[in-house]
Amino acid sequence: MLTMSDELILKLSCPDRSGIVRAVSGAITELGGNIVESQQFGDTSSGNFHMRVETEHIADPEGFRHRMQTLGGALEMNWEINRKDRKIRTVIMASKEAHCLSDLLYHTKEGKIPIEVSAVVSNHEILRPLADFYGIPFIYIPVTKETKPEAEAALLEVIKDADAELVVLARYMQVLSDRVCEAMAGRIINIHHSFLPSFKGARPYAQAHARGVKLIGATAHYVTPDLDEGPIIEQDVVRVKHSDSVEELMSQGEDVERRVLTRAVRWHAEHRVLLNGSSTVVFD
Amino acid sequence: MLTMSDELILKLSCPDRSGIVRAVSGAITELGGNIVESQQFGDTSSGNFHMRVETEHIADPEGFRHRMQTLGGALEMNWEINRKDRKIRTVIMASKEAHCLSDLLYHTKEGKIPIEVSAVVSNHEILRPLADFYGIPFIYIPVTKETKPEAEAALLEVIKDADAELVVLARYMQVLSDRVCEAMAGRIINIHHSFLPSFKGARPYAQAHARGVKLIGATAHYVTPDLDEGPIIEQDVVRVKHSDSVEELMSQGEDVERRVLTRAVRWHAEHRVLLNGSSTVVFD
Amino acid sequence: MLTMSDELILKLSCPDRSGIVRAVSGAITELGGNIVESQQFGDTSSGNFHMRVETEHIADPEGFRHRMQTLGGALEMNWEINRKDRKIRTVIMASKEAHCLSDLLYHTKEGKIPIEVSAVVSNHEILRPLADFYGIPFIYIPVTKETKPEAEAALLEVIKDADAELVVLARYMQVLSDRVCEAMAGRIINIHHSFLPSFKGARPYAQAHARGVKLIGATAHYVTPDLDEGPIIEQDVVRVKHSDSVEELMSQGEDVERRVLTRAVRWHAEHRVLLNGSSTVVFD
Amino acid sequence: MLTMSDELILKLSCPDRSGIVRAVSGAITELGGNIVESQQFGDTSSGNFHMRVETEHIADPEGFRHRMQTLGGALEMNWEINRKDRKIRTVIMASKEAHCLSDLLYHTKEGKIPIEVSAVVSNHEILRPLADFYGIPFIYIPVTKETKPEAEAALLEVIKDADAELVVLARYMQVLSDRVCEAMAGRIINIHHSFLPSFKGARPYAQAHARGVKLIGATAHYVTPDLDEGPIIEQDVVRVKHSDSVEELMSQGEDVERRVLTRAVRWHAEHRVLLNGSSTVVFD
Repeated sequence: MLTMSDELILKLSCPDRSGIVRAVSGAITELGGNIVESQQFGDTSSGNFHMRVETEHIADPEGFRHRMQTLGGALEMNWEINRKDRKIRTVIMASKEAHCLSDLLYHTKEGKIPIEVSAVVSNHEILRPLADFYGIPFIYIPVTKETKPEAEAALLEVIKDADAELVVLARYMQVLSDRVCEAMAGRIINIHHSFLPSFKGARPYAQAHARGVKLIGATAHYVTPDLDEGPIIEQDVVRVKHSDSVEELMSQGEDVERRVLTRAVRWHAEHRVLLNGSSTVVFD
Repeated sequence: MLTMSDELILKLSCPDRSGIVRAVSGAITELGGNIVESQQFGDTSSGNFHMRVETEHIADPEGFRHRMQTLGGALEMNWEINRKDRKIRTVIMASKEAHCLSDLLYHTKEGKIPIEVSAVVSNHEILRPLADFYGIPFIYIPVTKETKPEAEAALLEVIKDADAELVVLARYMQVLSDRVCEAMAGRIINIHHSFLPSFKGARPYAQAHARGVKLIGATAHYVTPDLDEGPIIEQDVVRVKHSDSVEELMSQGEDVERRVLTRAVRWHAEHRVLLNGSSTVVFD
Repeated sequence: MLTMSDELILKLSCPDRSGIVRAVSGAITELGGNIVESQQFGDTSSGNFHMRVETEHIADPEGFRHRMQTLGGALEMNWEINRKDRKIRTVIMASKEAHCLSDLLYHTKEGKIPIEVSAVVSNHEILRPLADFYGIPFIYIPVTKETKPEAEAALLEVIKDADAELVVLARYMQVLSDRVCEAMAGRIINIHHSFLPSFKGARPYAQAHARGVKLIGATAHYVTPDLDEGPIIEQDVVRVKHSDSVEELMSQGEDVERRVLTRAVRWHAEHRVLLNGSSTVVFD
Repeated sequence: MLTMSDELILKLSCPDRSGIVRAVSGAITELGGNIVESQQFGDTSSGNFHMRVETEHIADPEGFRHRMQTLGGALEMNWEINRKDRKIRTVIMASKEAHCLSDLLYHTKEGKIPIEVSAVVSNHEILRPLADFYGIPFIYIPVTKETKPEAEAALLEVIKDADAELVVLARYMQVLSDRVCEAMAGRIINIHHSFLPSFKGARPYAQAHARGVKLIGATAHYVTPDLDEGPIIEQDVVRVKHSDSVEELMSQGEDVERRVLTRAVRWHAEHRVLLNGSSTVVFD
């Protein structure tokens, strides 16, 4: 690959009004930059405007930040500028199942997801060899009803030490407390093993089997205190047959789960996902 | 097409036990028949066995029926024998939207669905020209809260006159009473404009838009008195984007709805769908 | 629907350089316009830049055209401005099969494709009732080896009389001469009944059956003198089984063909398709 | 999981005639067996009949084999009986790319594919750590134009030592000689990184990019001396965009390749794939 050192990604959200694209593209041009890729979306129902721009040749990124600060103040923007080649500091949590963790670590190692994984945290020991294989620190934090507060304190410590920007729940089978959800709002991605809002809660494949659905799915979403209700990033499905048992649904579901989660984490890390009320804009 | 006059389709369901396939295939062979296609499924969770066989060269269909009567008594079978070239007498109901009705009539006319449509029943006049184009009698039965009992009586009269074996609700926007549901149990197919069990009830596309799902779907199911809970025959989905409005979801959804309903009706009419408790076996 | 009378769509292609987005968005803002939706793509391999912008509130569309003329000259642009509510004048050609023509006319009538169909031209009489049902003039132009030049002259006359901007070959089973292809370059859309470049030429379903493929597809593309080699607009596939005969492949393929062609025509008519060498950019 | 020790899988192919199902199901019933699952397909174009049966409770598998030997002789059958819990002895070959090998080893370890991998053979050293992680012997057999005959001799030795029933080419980038292809006819599965028959030969993603296709795919097939022409077992596709570079097509293609290959190997190992002339019957 080429060096991407001067490529910057700007993403922004603000109330829609005339002149936003002009102002932003004007700033980029004046700083000597070129727009490589750009996407916009004005949501007429919420009145919000969302934009993602990839630029090259901006010699002075700090200057760009200053321009955006002025612009952002005037236009009530949430905005963020990231270097394209900077990897997002990430903690992955898992329990006993390997498929999602394995897929994330594989694609990260291959350079397909721009994250650096600071640690794998688990409430079981079973996935330690997998983390070892990829050379990632594995931190065992067991959780019982009684020790949950201490366990979460330990988790927050790990997140703090790693200065983590993102936490990925790769089939982590514990519900996080509101405290953690709020501390990391918009920065925790979970994979739910159903096509939400179908089959919320526990044992979704058993529910799907009982209902006799013809497709099963998985949903990657940001975690909010309201369980299984956070903004959806990505979903996909796979066709199943009447002869598939609950175990076979689970087995087929794993393939969808890992693909959906890997895609969601990649899009997040490439700054393609913008919150839009209770849903998301994905500039894929 | 060739004449298919001696092709028969047997479908059966019974408690699973040893020797069913042998008994059935033995009967077919002894009657000079050949098995063209055959599928079986033993559901280990319910203990039920399901089978569909296409035969040719059985010179004496009545003899086959007698054999199956004996066999069916001994093995507690639900069974049915149909000539492959016999078309299922069908009444289609619709309201204002044309897409499902249009697709059903088109494919029926082209010989792709083995049904003969006795009548199109609607609570609006708007689809009359479409029925006219295909030469199908159009029966206008308006429904108000007050006239619902009379309207349903009129509908049952139409069904009786046509000796209809199947009623298809092609986006018919009235809820049928329990009386009609029970009179035609297992013989009314509805298309629900969501990926059930997500978004039951009214305005599913508006619900889907509000929840920010990334795929929308449609579900064809048998109608039971328990609304939106009948056994599912077929489902499918289509990918949508953050920029799609509710209207655009509806528009995209139409294409999924018509495909799912057309497929479900075809499978039913080809005797491929067998009830298995609250779900279905589909030998596609 | 609301009136869309002041919505304009600009599409443009030009050699990539710094400042294009700024210049275009600047012009729009100065004319009092607002950008509703905008997509860009800079193709690093060809060095071309492509852009599609939907605007509202530009009171003076002619002023916009003048600005673009100046800009377009300076930046070597191919550009086009269309009112969003203007329907594209279209001639559809078909032979004997109804599925593509039927789907196009249905969606056009329902307001889902912004075209107005001036005429259906066919080398057979069989589809006349379908055109009649939708109130579209049906023009029968038979073609034999001997009469091909006259037939094509008659066709060009129809196109000229209708001032047609688009010709859609909806399973029209005659090869157009280079003369027609060139006269309407980039404005004839064909549906090929295979997943090109697999199975070019005649009888693609028979070829697919012989090869034992597990998916069959369809391809909508612009027509060029080089048969089956024009820029691809859209493709899709459907899964088939070992038990499907050639006839069943054809039957299943019809559903893919009509969907792919309808989508391609809609995208073209919404000014979403831009030529990029021998392929296309689709801002869907 | 339960013990599956008495479950047997019979697969057979023979010229179609009356009475096959009866004869086979009769034999099973007489031996005290029960049919758990059964699928048949009579190919009217080739005149061949194919069948796969899963049985339980046959106390005397050797007796079953004897019955099938008699039957098979009389009916000109190719048949095979396997215990359901027996794992297929397999050698996997790969070059530098990890995605297919990684997916196969992961699913094998998780018990999702009934194979036991005797060895990973590669013409490069790069994948050794991956084989080590899964505890599989890694055998490095470098290949140059000059050493190809020795390399293939070494490979055949590995196959012989392992008594391998199956060789999987998991992105092995060397063409096998006719000698190896013939020695293992019907027992070598390759993954081709295109939707065959599109883009045969080298660099299919570059070809796909140049042609501007809207979907890319992968094909798992049995290897024959006729390159890229062997019977297809499974295919799948993924949608791509105009903005995807050749590298991005490759990256997206990897996900399809690994899924298609893993599925094909699983189906083969579950005795679901039967050769039918130049194509396959897949009882999935």
